[in-house]
Amino acid sequence: MNDTMSDKKNMLQTDDFEKMFLPGLAIDAVILGFHENSLKILLLEYENTNLFALPGGFIKKDENLNDAAMRTLQDRTSLKNIYLEQFYVFGDIERYDPRPLQTIMAGKGLTYVKDHFLLKRFLTVGYYALVDYTKATPIPDMLSDKCDWHDLDNLPPLMLDHKQIIAKALETLRTDLDQKLIGFNLMPENFTMADLQSLYETVLGEKLLRTSFQRKMLNLKILKRVDKKYTGAAHKAPYLYTFIKK
Amino acid sequence: MNDTMSDKKNMLQTDDFEKMFLPGLAIDAVILGFHENSLKILLLEYENTNLFALPGGFIKKDENLNDAAMRTLQDRTSLKNIYLEQFYVFGDIERYDPRPLQTIMAGKGLTYVKDHFLLKRFLTVGYYALVDYTKATPIPDMLSDKCDWHDLDNLPPLMLDHKQIIAKALETLRTDLDQKLIGFNLMPENFTMADLQSLYETVLGEKLLRTSFQRKMLNLKILKRVDKKYTGAAHKAPYLYTFIKK
Repeated sequence: MNDTMSDKKNMLQTDDFEKMFLPGLAIDAVILGFHENSLKILLLEYENTNLFALPGGFIKKDENLNDAAMRTLQDRTSLKNIYLEQFYVFGDIERYDPRPLQTIMAGKGLTYVKDHFLLKRFLTVGYYALVDYTKATPIPDMLSDKCDWHDLDNLPPLMLDHKQIIAKALETLRTDLDQKLIGFNLMPENFTMADLQSLYETVLGEKLLRTSFQRKMLNLKILKRVDKKYTGAAHKAPYLYTFIKK
Repeated sequence: MNDTMSDKKNMLQTDDFEKMFLPGLAIDAVILGFHENSLKILLLEYENTNLFALPGGFIKKDENLNDAAMRTLQDRTSLKNIYLEQFYVFGDIERYDPRPLQTIMAGKGLTYVKDHFLLKRFLTVGYYALVDYTKATPIPDMLSDKCDWHDLDNLPPLMLDHKQIIAKALETLRTDLDQKLIGFNLMPENFTMADLQSLYETVLGEKLLRTSFQRKMLNLKILKRVDKKYTGAAHKAPYLYTFIKK
């Protein structure tokens, strides 16, 4: 056995998990990616298992929950500085199923004890974010084969209840987009009303009427029109907007 | 020692908690009560401690999280059939403080072991509801002295971070009231626009303009005007509305 295998084996000892992490509670991150009319989601694929999953992890005993969400996302995907928002705790009994983790462990050629930390019932706190996927290049961690953007309307088979977690995140995003728009930091400094409408249409999955969309956005009182620069084509160019800083 | 003391002592044995409940995760319920321009909150007071707290509890090992929220509320206050909504998980390290529970145990004349289930770090899932407080009469459980409605603007000293939990619940309610209005089942079958405005003004803590409030509510497409009954005074009476059932 080489050193790397031995490290991996140590990492999966149940005692190590029990010393380091809070029991029974996980974090899963739904990282949605938007760019030019398409919406994607970040998924990990585990080695030798054909299992796809949301990037997730556990909370250290001396760590704030929200910090753990940031850290696990970075540990598992190398993505940093992403504005994560809690949206729901998934805590139904029926989500408990130790088999996928047994498969992952077996995929690594590891034997496991019956009451291993990872095989007990877990509740999971769902976090979500919306980023520009062309600006966020994920890197898989040592547990996963791949870490890639997938089309939302063509998902591979997912672990446990991760499909429901994604559906709930998307529902939350659609409801909360007006309020979270600035926080997601997704638009450039200046943008047109058409840029913004394209984002909304992609997230909502439906076409919107230009006039009523514009009225609604202006009523939110979060947009400021930017003075046009003096250029020959200026009178033909659409208005540019920026977010009002609080 | 009489039988009741002995029962209570058994109930606080750490082994019993560990067998029955998931470790490290609690539930706290922010039950807001509305009636005629006033907003109240339901608090428990613990015996012999002068400590006030939100009604809360733990999740059984074979119980869904959302069911646990309903059950703990009923166990601790006798309130049933209340529409509870998850709103946030409070998981900062700094909320961890075993002293209030040591005080509660001491108030009962109980000694405790150092690593008792109740004295470890807890994260808590916050749930909230909005009810008519004249229709919800709470009854304290065996752990608490009192279970009463308190004015939101005159709160007693609260345990741990319960004041912040209430503030966050109120912030969520204010943001989400449009969407949760029907679910809270707070209005009578038929109501006037003034009744609805009174609810909003009380929750938001500010006066609203009648015309813009009416326009906003009608734009939500959740209200249906009820045909007036033929009475002598009908032409003077305000319109009645009802919620559109989905």
